[in-house]
Amino acid sequence: MNKTAIPHALKAIGVVGAGRMGTPIIGHLARKGFATRACDLNAARASAVKELGAQWAASPESLAAECDAILVCVGFDREVQELLAEGGPLRRAKPGAIVAILSTIHPKTVQNLARECASANLHVVDSTVCRGGEAADKGTLLSFVGGSAEVVGRLTPVLRAYSSDVVHTGGVGTAQVAKAVNNLILWACLVADHEGLALARHYGADIEALRKALLISSCANGPLEKWGSQTMAWAEDDMAIVAEMAAEAGIALPQAGVNREICRALKPRRYKLDLYGR
Amino acid sequence: MNKTAIPHALKAIGVVGAGRMGTPIIGHLARKGFATRACDLNAARASAVKELGAQWAASPESLAAECDAILVCVGFDREVQELLAEGGPLRRAKPGAIVAILSTIHPKTVQNLARECASANLHVVDSTVCRGGEAADKGTLLSFVGGSAEVVGRLTPVLRAYSSDVVHTGGVGTAQVAKAVNNLILWACLVADHEGLALARHYGADIEALRKALLISSCANGPLEKWGSQTMAWAEDDMAIVAEMAAEAGIALPQAGVNREICRALKPRRYKLDLYGR
Amino acid sequence: MNKTAIPHALKAIGVVGAGRMGTPIIGHLARKGFATRACDLNAARASAVKELGAQWAASPESLAAECDAILVCVGFDREVQELLAEGGPLRRAKPGAIVAILSTIHPKTVQNLARECASANLHVVDSTVCRGGEAADKGTLLSFVGGSAEVVGRLTPVLRAYSSDVVHTGGVGTAQVAKAVNNLILWACLVADHEGLALARHYGADIEALRKALLISSCANGPLEKWGSQTMAWAEDDMAIVAEMAAEAGIALPQAGVNREICRALKPRRYKLDLYGR
Amino acid sequence: MNKTAIPHALKAIGVVGAGRMGTPIIGHLARKGFATRACDLNAARASAVKELGAQWAASPESLAAECDAILVCVGFDREVQELLAEGGPLRRAKPGAIVAILSTIHPKTVQNLARECASANLHVVDSTVCRGGEAADKGTLLSFVGGSAEVVGRLTPVLRAYSSDVVHTGGVGTAQVAKAVNNLILWACLVADHEGLALARHYGADIEALRKALLISSCANGPLEKWGSQTMAWAEDDMAIVAEMAAEAGIALPQAGVNREICRALKPRRYKLDLYGR
Repeated sequence: MNKTAIPHALKAIGVVGAGRMGTPIIGHLARKGFATRACDLNAARASAVKELGAQWAASPESLAAECDAILVCVGFDREVQELLAEGGPLRRAKPGAIVAILSTIHPKTVQNLARECASANLHVVDSTVCRGGEAADKGTLLSFVGGSAEVVGRLTPVLRAYSSDVVHTGGVGTAQVAKAVNNLILWACLVADHEGLALARHYGADIEALRKALLISSCANGPLEKWGSQTMAWAEDDMAIVAEMAAEAGIALPQAGVNREICRALKPRRYKLDLYGR
Repeated sequence: MNKTAIPHALKAIGVVGAGRMGTPIIGHLARKGFATRACDLNAARASAVKELGAQWAASPESLAAECDAILVCVGFDREVQELLAEGGPLRRAKPGAIVAILSTIHPKTVQNLARECASANLHVVDSTVCRGGEAADKGTLLSFVGGSAEVVGRLTPVLRAYSSDVVHTGGVGTAQVAKAVNNLILWACLVADHEGLALARHYGADIEALRKALLISSCANGPLEKWGSQTMAWAEDDMAIVAEMAAEAGIALPQAGVNREICRALKPRRYKLDLYGR
Repeated sequence: MNKTAIPHALKAIGVVGAGRMGTPIIGHLARKGFATRACDLNAARASAVKELGAQWAASPESLAAECDAILVCVGFDREVQELLAEGGPLRRAKPGAIVAILSTIHPKTVQNLARECASANLHVVDSTVCRGGEAADKGTLLSFVGGSAEVVGRLTPVLRAYSSDVVHTGGVGTAQVAKAVNNLILWACLVADHEGLALARHYGADIEALRKALLISSCANGPLEKWGSQTMAWAEDDMAIVAEMAAEAGIALPQAGVNREICRALKPRRYKLDLYGR
Repeated sequence: MNKTAIPHALKAIGVVGAGRMGTPIIGHLARKGFATRACDLNAARASAVKELGAQWAASPESLAAECDAILVCVGFDREVQELLAEGGPLRRAKPGAIVAILSTIHPKTVQNLARECASANLHVVDSTVCRGGEAADKGTLLSFVGGSAEVVGRLTPVLRAYSSDVVHTGGVGTAQVAKAVNNLILWACLVADHEGLALARHYGADIEALRKALLISSCANGPLEKWGSQTMAWAEDDMAIVAEMAAEAGIALPQAGVNREICRALKPRRYKLDLYGR
């Protein structure tokens, strides 16, 4: 672990990726008084960013040079790698800067990048977010953070700007493990909810009344509570990471294996119970 | 629906089956002031029943003759059928008596029995219980009840003796549908929890800390909250009913199909994460 | 095992059920010179039966009284039980007659019926048929037979009238076990063939050329050879028996569990690769 | 497609990778009179290669410079990419040389490499092999070949040295698609065979007699014929490719999803029926 002193209070915060999650996070940071800079490949996001009280950066390079901490909110493993690879834009961050990866990617990618960037005097941690877009809007996300206690301690006030709960899960990569497990269970529940409610529909049940009753029963689960609102936008990518992790761990996860495939077909017909299993 | 007047207040309550669920229910009924009678194939249960303040009945026939309402707490579909078949012991119940089936059985069995018993002036309803043995002990079960509003209304004070929540799910059989759906989702969650936590274990996570964090995340679910305490005693029987219902409904429930098989192998090694998927 | 002498050569053969399998079997028996009688619940089958050179029997009772051996070709477990239950029509068969159950039913049903009928001096065996309707037409079925060597030996010439292969699988019930295993693997292959060819379709392969190439490869299988011709008429019933047998054996068959559900949805869209997995 | 004339008759053949498949292929080529050169990362393979009548090449570079056609028999996608990447050793092959990829890898990897190498005047095709190690020993492999008719025509005599069947599947990449489909079905069959025979074992069947009977029945399949001999060495890698292809194609393959997981746990206990599903 690099021993360079971390600037005591993180004041200037950069956000790379102003999408569904990044945008509300930018807003919370700005409102909480952080000097917030943001960039996105899509230049059309600039006005929205500025309206939230943050500065628009023309590129991740220019953003990196100005920030004490950078939150990476891009979509894919490959994008995170390009940002932090040798010669990549975030390598231009100030010595001692913290780079927090919010994207859901493979734990080993984070661990590899953290190791490589340590020599460049950057503190890479993973800081995954749960509870989805609505919680991002309200600033009530759950953040899992993986990194040294010192770095996580410094970063926590930043995370609290948009998270009502922050859990330090362990060393670098552990926040990705926690997120992967969350996703595995989350999508399993959503599939199970579909199967259960589709069955009930065929037996003539009042689905909305049943759903409410089940929420106070032993099978209560998050996706049943949020029934009708989950986009499944990332379900397939989530389950691809889970599949790779299971293969590397050498354990068989038969339910996750079938869930991955079900999610692929379910996404476009989610919440349409009459179509389930037909 | 039989029009015989139901005795206004149900006072004398019989319980057939003094097992894991029946026994605490007997206790709650007696403590709440109902004149409670119980029987069980296993005569050794008599002393426990008496200690709870209930009377021991030598047989379901003798019990039936004395009660305003009878709660059937036996284990299997076949047993319920034998109790209520033509010539069966519960056919000797007083005219207008209510027979509530608490056992988890196929909805159609309940509907068939209700139809047959209506001509014998018995009101058969299903009144399934969720939340498990601990909730039975505390009197905080959730009861789903399927039957006419009138009968359910009369029965509700009895159910409230041991249930903190009573939900009228619709006509006869609907409480079994609700219970089946609960079970389908419940066991799906427990399998998913095993898969997720087993994966985390292989990545070195602190399982108990992770579990607590997941309970405030989007994947929170009942079995994760009760982690370590579920016996899975009835999981296989539950899933056999689900499988039959799906076949009859003509819909494919691929996750439930694989869960049924997983549960069979999981039961003896439940909560042993190191053995999962090996 | 009943010791009553079996009539030396079986000459008069009855067939109960003149459906897709029974009808061609009736034809083969008649052509091979057996005095063949047949009945069916559907009286409209009489003319077809007579055209094949067999006699029409008004009922299974009347048929039973005239035959040395009776082949039961009905569809369902319940029907077989009704035919052979105490007081059932086939109990009127001549002392020492052989009743061969060709229907695919649970092995234990056959074993129970064999035990019960032994006291009525009937030899019940199971004699399941594989390879489907076309093979029935050609008289090239594969028969599995479960029973004592003596009874099976006597029955074999009858089976050879419509079977190019007869395999004595062991005691009563073993022909059902063999058939169940055949079905489990058969439908698994058909699902796998769909998944493989659907994937190939998405990658632009010439499906018919690929199928032929695969038939000389390591993945060759029966349903791939018969691609396009299987009705899946009994796939669901087959898999229900498999599921029950697995539950009784206490072993988890996760692929069979998911196959059962897939078959249910696949049947109406079988061989339509563009619809698979959508 | 590059138009450089292909040398008329391929005489000098290189084999990169002298493992389980490469070694017997080297032997067949040498015995059929091809000037055969081989290399392997493991220098200890040199003596075996020489004994087969081939020359040992110190490196893929030196091999490439001397050969008209090169067969790539390495294990993994990454290795194939390294051999053929810009600056990679096989880029030093003679202008117009054919590089045939026998390794099982993703179709798109082959297509990308073929496109890149075309500008370097190399003809990259995929030429996957089925039927396993024993067939390799006997020279009775099945080769699927994907490439232009001209290149495939020139390569065919080389493939015939070790293949009793050669099927031209279409353009570059199609041999990988055919192999992936073969593998998907192959492992599905092996899992199904385990489930079926494990079930039979619990019902007391003579497994070897049953297996032989099933081989003449409708469920006959390759892995049932080769029962007891398949190593499953590559099953997991095969299924990982299938999973990636299904994800890219956007179709759900639920059986393949669960098979992938089952194979992972099955491999160390394959053919041990008493352990299946426990």
